[in-house]
Amino acid sequence: MAKVATVITNWFEDVEFTSPKEALEAAGHEVITIGLKAGEEVVGKRGEAKVTVEHSIEDVKPEDYDALLIPGGYSPDKLRANDDILEFVRYFAQKEQPIFSICHAPQLLVNADVIRGKDLTSVKQVRVDVENAGGNFIDQAVVIDPSGLISSRTPDDIPQFNEAIVNALAK
Amino acid sequence: MAKVATVITNWFEDVEFTSPKEALEAAGHEVITIGLKAGEEVVGKRGEAKVTVEHSIEDVKPEDYDALLIPGGYSPDKLRANDDILEFVRYFAQKEQPIFSICHAPQLLVNADVIRGKDLTSVKQVRVDVENAGGNFIDQAVVIDPSGLISSRTPDDIPQFNEAIVNALAK
Repeated sequence: MAKVATVITNWFEDVEFTSPKEALEAAGHEVITIGLKAGEEVVGKRGEAKVTVEHSIEDVKPEDYDALLIPGGYSPDKLRANDDILEFVRYFAQKEQPIFSICHAPQLLVNADVIRGKDLTSVKQVRVDVENAGGNFIDQAVVIDPSGLISSRTPDDIPQFNEAIVNALAK
Repeated sequence: MAKVATVITNWFEDVEFTSPKEALEAAGHEVITIGLKAGEEVVGKRGEAKVTVEHSIEDVKPEDYDALLIPGGYSPDKLRANDDILEFVRYFAQKEQPIFSICHAPQLLVNADVIRGKDLTSVKQVRVDVENAGGNFIDQAVVIDPSGLISSRTPDDIPQFNEAIVNALAK
């Protein structure tokens, strides 16, 4: 059973949190939410999902978690303004622990500067940022980099994304 | 009197549209809204400003306008997924006509690939994208590039931003 840290704040893409969380939990893993302020209720951009942030980024250590999930929407752009979040993300990349990235999530990876030379995908409009940051953009439903980075493009890719991230933790 | 095209869609930063528009109109200029669909009502991210898009991007020619205003918020990220919008933006850069950019607006300039070698600023978290795209990021309230690109960081910079863009059109 793995502990999966999820970094999240307001205007995440609702289903990019709720569906992977459900799939991970169904496989026996634990999903823990980490944000800017413990106890804060954050709301998805569609207003469908509401999540109470369990831990403030200031109170967590990345070594307490096995993997990192980054839902998309506008949450990654907000989170990437916070240096503690960027440090947290960097730990998983440096240790080559699994990072699950979907849609706009690579914005956070770009600011953490952890995608150079890696294969990944993202929502269409973030492609330029990914390539400018040294990532190798691939336009397919799921991209699995040897470093442990697993990425998908949009909510339409969620079935394949969920399958890939559950498989990654089963190894 | 100048015709200032404004590219805009939902979740723009309310005051980054309303305040420059007011300043430009007070100086005798015309501000025309261009978006994804003529007649669509788009709403600012704070819900304070509602704007009816005057022209669809498919129905306009950049040569009919003298300058380009790009409000921030999440509107630029949505707009940069549209190739016609990117072409429209490129025209102003190629002709070195005034481009007024604030906050997240450089995301659109990055995808249009028009900031290489230029001085500009943006909201903090877009700085990495700006630098990766070849822009020379400067952390000050208003940055004026010789090409006609005028940029500011956040709503706090609006007084200086408005002064600079009105001055640019007075020349």
